[in-house]
Amino acid sequence: MALIVQKFGGTSVADIERIKRVATIVKRDRDAGHQVIVVVSAMAGVTNQLVDYCSQVSSLMENDQRANADHVVAAGEQITSGLLALELQSLGQPARAWAGWQIPLHSDDMYSKARIDEIGTEAINASLAKGEVAVIAGFQGISPEGRITTLGRGGSDTSAVAIAAAFKAERCDIYTDVDGVYTSDPRIIKKARKLKQVGYEEMLEMASLGSKVLQTRSVELAMNYRVKVQVLSTFDDTPADQIPGTLLVDEEDLVEKQRVTGLAYSRDEARITLTNVENKPGVSAGIFGPLADRGINVDMIVQNVTEDGKQTDLTFTVTKGDLPRALELVKNDPAMPKCEKVHTDGGVAKISVIGVGMRSHAGVAAEMFRTLAEKNINIIVISTSEIKISVLIDESYIELALRALHTAYGLDAVEEKN
Amino acid sequence: MALIVQKFGGTSVADIERIKRVATIVKRDRDAGHQVIVVVSAMAGVTNQLVDYCSQVSSLMENDQRANADHVVAAGEQITSGLLALELQSLGQPARAWAGWQIPLHSDDMYSKARIDEIGTEAINASLAKGEVAVIAGFQGISPEGRITTLGRGGSDTSAVAIAAAFKAERCDIYTDVDGVYTSDPRIIKKARKLKQVGYEEMLEMASLGSKVLQTRSVELAMNYRVKVQVLSTFDDTPADQIPGTLLVDEEDLVEKQRVTGLAYSRDEARITLTNVENKPGVSAGIFGPLADRGINVDMIVQNVTEDGKQTDLTFTVTKGDLPRALELVKNDPAMPKCEKVHTDGGVAKISVIGVGMRSHAGVAAEMFRTLAEKNINIIVISTSEIKISVLIDESYIELALRALHTAYGLDAVEEKN
Repeated sequence: MALIVQKFGGTSVADIERIKRVATIVKRDRDAGHQVIVVVSAMAGVTNQLVDYCSQVSSLMENDQRANADHVVAAGEQITSGLLALELQSLGQPARAWAGWQIPLHSDDMYSKARIDEIGTEAINASLAKGEVAVIAGFQGISPEGRITTLGRGGSDTSAVAIAAAFKAERCDIYTDVDGVYTSDPRIIKKARKLKQVGYEEMLEMASLGSKVLQTRSVELAMNYRVKVQVLSTFDDTPADQIPGTLLVDEEDLVEKQRVTGLAYSRDEARITLTNVENKPGVSAGIFGPLADRGINVDMIVQNVTEDGKQTDLTFTVTKGDLPRALELVKNDPAMPKCEKVHTDGGVAKISVIGVGMRSHAGVAAEMFRTLAEKNINIIVISTSEIKISVLIDESYIELALRALHTAYGLDAVEEKN
Repeated sequence: MALIVQKFGGTSVADIERIKRVATIVKRDRDAGHQVIVVVSAMAGVTNQLVDYCSQVSSLMENDQRANADHVVAAGEQITSGLLALELQSLGQPARAWAGWQIPLHSDDMYSKARIDEIGTEAINASLAKGEVAVIAGFQGISPEGRITTLGRGGSDTSAVAIAAAFKAERCDIYTDVDGVYTSDPRIIKKARKLKQVGYEEMLEMASLGSKVLQTRSVELAMNYRVKVQVLSTFDDTPADQIPGTLLVDEEDLVEKQRVTGLAYSRDEARITLTNVENKPGVSAGIFGPLADRGINVDMIVQNVTEDGKQTDLTFTVTKGDLPRALELVKNDPAMPKCEKVHTDGGVAKISVIGVGMRSHAGVAAEMFRTLAEKNINIIVISTSEIKISVLIDESYIELALRALHTAYGLDAVEEKN
């Protein structure tokens, strides 16, 4: 008998019919002899409605205001947890709903984006021992002063993984509306393959690069506590024990270390280039300090020194939404270093090649550049990490580039024969 | 500086605009120098929606099921309390939302109709001392096993009065969509007058007789703990300190003990008469025991013995909804005493004359009978208590009877001169 944590997102519990479907999945695992802890999100649309109510009465600028807002917003998950527990009881499966404070899931007091401190296991273990399924409201906890906190958007993934770690669960199954993690976005790459396994670090790169399957923080947590996480579909009938989805595992446990595991991309990129900036110590801090102070996230940074070494060209990327504010700052902030010209380009996109196998396989970068060159795609910026190579290109080439790279790295699914 | 408890019902907090209006009322009392505890219901319609969800997945037959349902339903008040606290903060008034478990409001574990055991005051007193307004989710508490309970429909009134008692509040203002308690239903009696004061026991009779202004249990609680309760309108601009509504007070504190304070009525009555029942000890128990066992509430009971004393005619009333089940039982239950015939009448109504002054003023009953006789209204059943006389009449005469009695007892409002 193993302990399984299951997490169901908003679309999986969108209405009463779907909650009934979810209950059959929970019961199937329970009937297979497992103890089951379920973590649920709010019914699709409910959180948005509650957040909208809050913003109609408050700017939510102060932590004290966000505390009252969390009190409102956390109600969404509370409702779903009670309803799923009720449906399980109707199927003859004893079940109990748990709010965050009842577990208790202790967090800090940074309301609306609280971080988990500690999770009590005693009460729920007693409930599981009685044969009950525990149905936990995700996304929420209790602060040191005894108030309701929420963990930020997507926080139910984080709840689920943290709970799986605290209860030393055999596996944490994240049920969603896709059936796993793919080599690339199946909406663009028809030949994208579902991955049987993906390393935590690879998933982290993919998650932070726009793959919406899992929240970044939940992947970090899974990596730190070595939680075996499976991403799988609520709408597939294969039992979760058979691992129909994608399993997040430790790099060492990857059966086959691919050179390249997947391709991620982001359209939400804008480029800013400053030419002929005076090249002296502190110039980067002078530029990026003020941007960070305004909460503007800078992603890729490239610096080229001119021939005489006295001046430098500096290129960096921000999100498209931040571009106007960033530009305003660069042009008008008195603290900014002098430069000759400021160029911007809001029509760029980033493509990343990800794979732990890169570490031992040379030539991944060279192959990327050659493939793009063959398609006459110009590379604007290059940035690399141990398991990732990212390039910035003209946004209009994004599909072409993804397809070419997907084939070049041998990621295409083998077509089934008729 | 006094401590005031304010309670706002579902129509008073129906949407964001109304919540904003409520916040101005709270702030007005706070600005007048009072400490304020607010108790709120769910936004109109929310509780029904949540109850409907629950009934779609559960029969709610077992207490364990009702526990999970309470987890769902209590979310409604939680949402309102957070939103009102947020709006108060936006008006510059520090405020904190409280769920039942945070107070804590301890109740028993009869889920969906829990009774309050004890209310902690320490945490909220500390919050009040900091200058905050406490905005409490009504209708809910926490059971001995640490689960969320609800106090049953209308339970927010009960929460408010119990909290006023626990915190020894100066006054408990129940804000609603009417501006007080009237001598009779203003929809029928155009000349109905708003009462400045009403005794607890009178209010109890009025509440249990269908006046929907206050929940019966909250009036009992107010009477037991001598809580000064004011019923007043959310939509009136007079400050509550000026007592624009109706004050519930101890009988001894009534400024003027009217012979008759008000007229109540109920259309939800059905009559059953059993003729020539054998008159022997235990015959009443034989009839009313089985009815009570099936949860059928019997209201008025009248028994007449026949001339020879051997047989008796028995008349009693039930609600219209219970009539078919009651009739089935009376006719077919083998435990029922034999009788000659069973007559029923679903077209009856009950009118009650209420007033603590009856105790010292003779002739109230006689005046009632004379007034009805003058209008040729036949009395089917009479039942009396210390401060109430009720009669059962043909339903079609109800408006006529109410108007005639209202005038006869001198309750009509003096018409304003132009």
